[in-house]
Amino acid sequence: MHENAGMTIRVGVIGTGNIGTSHAHDLASRVAGSTVTALFDADSDRADALASELGAAALPTFEAVVASRDVDAVLIASPDQFHAEQALACLAAGKPTLCEKPLAPLAEDARAVMDAEVAGGRQLIMMGFMRRFDPGYAELKSQLGPDGIGDPLIVRNTHRNEIAPYGLDSALSLTNAAIHEIDINRWLTEDEYAWVHVLTGRSGPLTPPGQHDPLFVLLQTTLGTIVEIEMFVQSQLGYEVSCQVTAGHGVAEMGDGAYVTTMRARQRGHALPAQWLGRFQEAYRLQLQGWITHLGTGGPMPGASVWDGYVDAVTATAAIASLRSGERVPVVLPPRPGLYA
Amino acid sequence: MHENAGMTIRVGVIGTGNIGTSHAHDLASRVAGSTVTALFDADSDRADALASELGAAALPTFEAVVASRDVDAVLIASPDQFHAEQALACLAAGKPTLCEKPLAPLAEDARAVMDAEVAGGRQLIMMGFMRRFDPGYAELKSQLGPDGIGDPLIVRNTHRNEIAPYGLDSALSLTNAAIHEIDINRWLTEDEYAWVHVLTGRSGPLTPPGQHDPLFVLLQTTLGTIVEIEMFVQSQLGYEVSCQVTAGHGVAEMGDGAYVTTMRARQRGHALPAQWLGRFQEAYRLQLQGWITHLGTGGPMPGASVWDGYVDAVTATAAIASLRSGERVPVVLPPRPGLYA
Amino acid sequence: MHENAGMTIRVGVIGTGNIGTSHAHDLASRVAGSTVTALFDADSDRADALASELGAAALPTFEAVVASRDVDAVLIASPDQFHAEQALACLAAGKPTLCEKPLAPLAEDARAVMDAEVAGGRQLIMMGFMRRFDPGYAELKSQLGPDGIGDPLIVRNTHRNEIAPYGLDSALSLTNAAIHEIDINRWLTEDEYAWVHVLTGRSGPLTPPGQHDPLFVLLQTTLGTIVEIEMFVQSQLGYEVSCQVTAGHGVAEMGDGAYVTTMRARQRGHALPAQWLGRFQEAYRLQLQGWITHLGTGGPMPGASVWDGYVDAVTATAAIASLRSGERVPVVLPPRPGLYA
Amino acid sequence: MHENAGMTIRVGVIGTGNIGTSHAHDLASRVAGSTVTALFDADSDRADALASELGAAALPTFEAVVASRDVDAVLIASPDQFHAEQALACLAAGKPTLCEKPLAPLAEDARAVMDAEVAGGRQLIMMGFMRRFDPGYAELKSQLGPDGIGDPLIVRNTHRNEIAPYGLDSALSLTNAAIHEIDINRWLTEDEYAWVHVLTGRSGPLTPPGQHDPLFVLLQTTLGTIVEIEMFVQSQLGYEVSCQVTAGHGVAEMGDGAYVTTMRARQRGHALPAQWLGRFQEAYRLQLQGWITHLGTGGPMPGASVWDGYVDAVTATAAIASLRSGERVPVVLPPRPGLYA
Repeated sequence: MHENAGMTIRVGVIGTGNIGTSHAHDLASRVAGSTVTALFDADSDRADALASELGAAALPTFEAVVASRDVDAVLIASPDQFHAEQALACLAAGKPTLCEKPLAPLAEDARAVMDAEVAGGRQLIMMGFMRRFDPGYAELKSQLGPDGIGDPLIVRNTHRNEIAPYGLDSALSLTNAAIHEIDINRWLTEDEYAWVHVLTGRSGPLTPPGQHDPLFVLLQTTLGTIVEIEMFVQSQLGYEVSCQVTAGHGVAEMGDGAYVTTMRARQRGHALPAQWLGRFQEAYRLQLQGWITHLGTGGPMPGASVWDGYVDAVTATAAIASLRSGERVPVVLPPRPGLYA
Repeated sequence: MHENAGMTIRVGVIGTGNIGTSHAHDLASRVAGSTVTALFDADSDRADALASELGAAALPTFEAVVASRDVDAVLIASPDQFHAEQALACLAAGKPTLCEKPLAPLAEDARAVMDAEVAGGRQLIMMGFMRRFDPGYAELKSQLGPDGIGDPLIVRNTHRNEIAPYGLDSALSLTNAAIHEIDINRWLTEDEYAWVHVLTGRSGPLTPPGQHDPLFVLLQTTLGTIVEIEMFVQSQLGYEVSCQVTAGHGVAEMGDGAYVTTMRARQRGHALPAQWLGRFQEAYRLQLQGWITHLGTGGPMPGASVWDGYVDAVTATAAIASLRSGERVPVVLPPRPGLYA
Repeated sequence: MHENAGMTIRVGVIGTGNIGTSHAHDLASRVAGSTVTALFDADSDRADALASELGAAALPTFEAVVASRDVDAVLIASPDQFHAEQALACLAAGKPTLCEKPLAPLAEDARAVMDAEVAGGRQLIMMGFMRRFDPGYAELKSQLGPDGIGDPLIVRNTHRNEIAPYGLDSALSLTNAAIHEIDINRWLTEDEYAWVHVLTGRSGPLTPPGQHDPLFVLLQTTLGTIVEIEMFVQSQLGYEVSCQVTAGHGVAEMGDGAYVTTMRARQRGHALPAQWLGRFQEAYRLQLQGWITHLGTGGPMPGASVWDGYVDAVTATAAIASLRSGERVPVVLPPRPGLYA
Repeated sequence: MHENAGMTIRVGVIGTGNIGTSHAHDLASRVAGSTVTALFDADSDRADALASELGAAALPTFEAVVASRDVDAVLIASPDQFHAEQALACLAAGKPTLCEKPLAPLAEDARAVMDAEVAGGRQLIMMGFMRRFDPGYAELKSQLGPDGIGDPLIVRNTHRNEIAPYGLDSALSLTNAAIHEIDINRWLTEDEYAWVHVLTGRSGPLTPPGQHDPLFVLLQTTLGTIVEIEMFVQSQLGYEVSCQVTAGHGVAEMGDGAYVTTMRARQRGHALPAQWLGRFQEAYRLQLQGWITHLGTGGPMPGASVWDGYVDAVTATAAIASLRSGERVPVVLPPRPGLYA
């Protein structure tokens, strides 16, 4: 049987900012088996323009997108604080959903979504932690384990942005940015965290009073793997993500994956992207293709689950507590619901 | 308007070996706006199996694929020597075609296809020189020119295979393998070759008597750019393609684009792919997407034309003459037909 | 005036194991202005052989080397636990000394040497922290500061050995191996530590019960710079030292400095040295040349002082306390004596 | 026996420009077993200043240096055109000599020196082809051969300067700059050249009319190894030398050997030196140490011989002929004199 044969998933998009627009273009033109039929944005002019470009309907509310009979599945790409409410609406409507990370900035809101999905008895929501689809991380993970370099002992992550577009807020650095590392290291190590400790120290020259940047986030998993994150939001460097795993029989490091090296004016090197889309564009497309193929064929959900989104939010919430107290904070999780076994 | 909205291009695939099968899977599952409806292979069991997997019809002849009313466009992925004949059939049927490289191993056969397309008055055939869609080469080209490192002065290409699957034949190294460099350097330099000179010398340990491997291919463009190719088919190294451009204001080099570096046993490095699919899988998909989007929207053909395929074949034919004579051989081209202006 | 003109420093070497023998050969054949005239080793056969090779006298005790009228300066390269006692003897004899690191494994023994040197009123002892002379670290440091990438915010160090030659002892990993990072990060940051915290977790497969390897050592300086060390003594990888500095305006990373990349069997990369001499041979030679030139010309001492050796020992001692308690331990220093201002 | 024990080689330096001054400082302060006692330069002020600094005598003529009773050995670092005459004077005086490359710009002048040395019956002159002492080239060569990557099949060399200090002269690019590659590839391959072919094409923007830059120099050895040199004197890039060897069982490439990578402003990379001293300073020192140790101990001459200097000059002279004619030119050598067997 042809994997996607004959079936086209009609997607409704909530939120048409940078990332929502990028997703909509991918679904319309670079993903097999999907089309965009409806969308909503608080900025109706922005929504109208994209709807016109894609031949979709711009609807007046996110609820209208969820309810639309022309929408088989929903993509949530609104600001972080709306994710939980909109995800609950999708669950209520019984529509499969791809929800941008985080599930919610704080653990309790994420918990409500998980409880609702568990009550419904089936997994409808996939979380948009797109790094799980990135060729770099995929290759890194493939090096681990008994056939590779062994068990991970220490994982050192670097996450640098050029500048914080809306100003620097250290708590947001954890819930919106470092949440990527919180998630991907659980996926890499196949383990949960025991505690988190956020260290602060000397800050970069652009850091306003009362804020800290870089943050040095330290975690340890239940099996003892040490995970470290340098999270530097206003590094002035461009966008850079790297991850080095020291394992029992070797070391593997994921870097830029640059194809082209240039030499000019006594310098040899390669360019860094300005933004995350320059690094993870392919991961986003692969995530969308994986989601659409999953919906079309009924195979297992290929990305992060609501359980993952919830655990990540618990960890980020603990990290904020550590940032404020200066102390190590345990990561306390409920038993994993059977739905996510 | 939505780029691909509502329209699905139904593709017939001729040849379902490694690359034909890879293309068919991409068209079915990883390219927006396409489906595979028919296919043919001389090995009918192989064709049947793929047809069954994709929900397509396995037809008894390539002519049946070309003629099928369920086929909007044809993909030719048969052995090199059949390309020209099948391309002529597609032209006769007036069906858009993506033809794997080379257009033909020898110039005269390629010329017949070009003449037929010119006589038909419109460009129906796109050549499958997929490197033009590769993110590495695209980035390399973007570095050239007045806003970058300037005009190309010397281009050094490396093309190494681990082993020649069907035994080593130096002429085939030129028409089937080095043809990629012949094409991509025309695209990089936006120039045509004046001459080609194939040097032979010390060969690798796997080279049978009477053959030469590596070949050292030297070309010069009409503007004077020197293009050099190390073509080493039985290098025992894995698959490696690199390209370094020395330009008037800088140097740019395209390498492996590896994301992951590993350390084991006193060695730090990264793995090379075993085959070209490991390096150019994304280029193949982008080429197919570009072709399908072009067919769906009527925009300009995004890849190599039949003129390119012809010029590449003329150059490869001259290279074979140089291999045999040991002398520098001019690359003589007719005027470019207006169809390809 | 010629820098070394006419003067040859006659050096006596205490300890002729691997590193003592390497130093003796350098002094005899690769350093301008020095000669080796006397040496001592507990293994008198080993001492006799080297003495014969170098035209030096093998003496029966280290005291005889210190006292010899043919010895202008002493190099201490004995096992760690003898350094303090021998350094005190050199101070008593008033002879300039290059003492291998550490000054002593524990802080109190190092303190006794510092007190004696301060009492003597002049700096006679230079500490053999050779990384301060390494071209890699020198270039790294040159990138820091207001004309470079700015103030250091986070420094991440990696120190991996292939195997622990005398078996694994986590305390020794701190006093004998990580002491290099303890010293070089003080030199890089031009700052002192406020606290140290040694984290343990999952250990490598060769680690015996009751020991921990790798160690994850965390320090913070008085200005707030976070310094992290991955210390992995039995990594099975070969010898690797790297150091990455995140600073206010950029990042600089010191790596292997490998000249040659090889490709073989689907792998591209470079070799790691088996031992530290393969990485730091040039640093050792430059350190010896700097010391000899300093003695010959009377210029300032170019390497680490006894104060440095003492502070490093205090820090290592605090690190051992942290390893045992699992808690963060403050690094408490006395006022810096005026002799080291 | 101590290798250099008790013996100090008193060196006289002819020519105290950049490289002569660098050599003199090395001999005085960074090489074991040597001192500088006399020197000469056409610019007597420059010579006086250096003599005063080093405690040496500034003499009025180069002949006075050669003749001085305080000079055991001579270092020739004058402009290229004086090398042969001064080397002949050293031979006449029977004094060991280190002669900067080239032995002479043209073959016939080099021949005269070789004939004189052969007539004298012993090797007195070592040629200053310092790359033979470079750690990068040494490691590259160590990878070749039956225990490594096998026999060299293709060698691709890159030699780029930022700017030609005295203006661009294509013949000088061959005799003064590419002569380094001419020599080092003979050393790497342990083979002699059969022919040389200099190709010209598109030149860089700083190239004056009638000159060519870059030059593309192609050579083939008697065993068939293809050697290629990109010689780009006014590349505007800084100083860069690289060498890639494709061999029967692998590839090895020598690059920059940079220790430190920096990230700033969306760029990751490392600095290139402005001049050759920044790349080859260590090679120069090792060459001097090798020469002095050889003189002190009587071991075999560790560097290039006059035969090497002569063959290199023959090849450069053939290259100039090729540059002028555009044709391939054979490299014709006399039988190697027994003195150099």
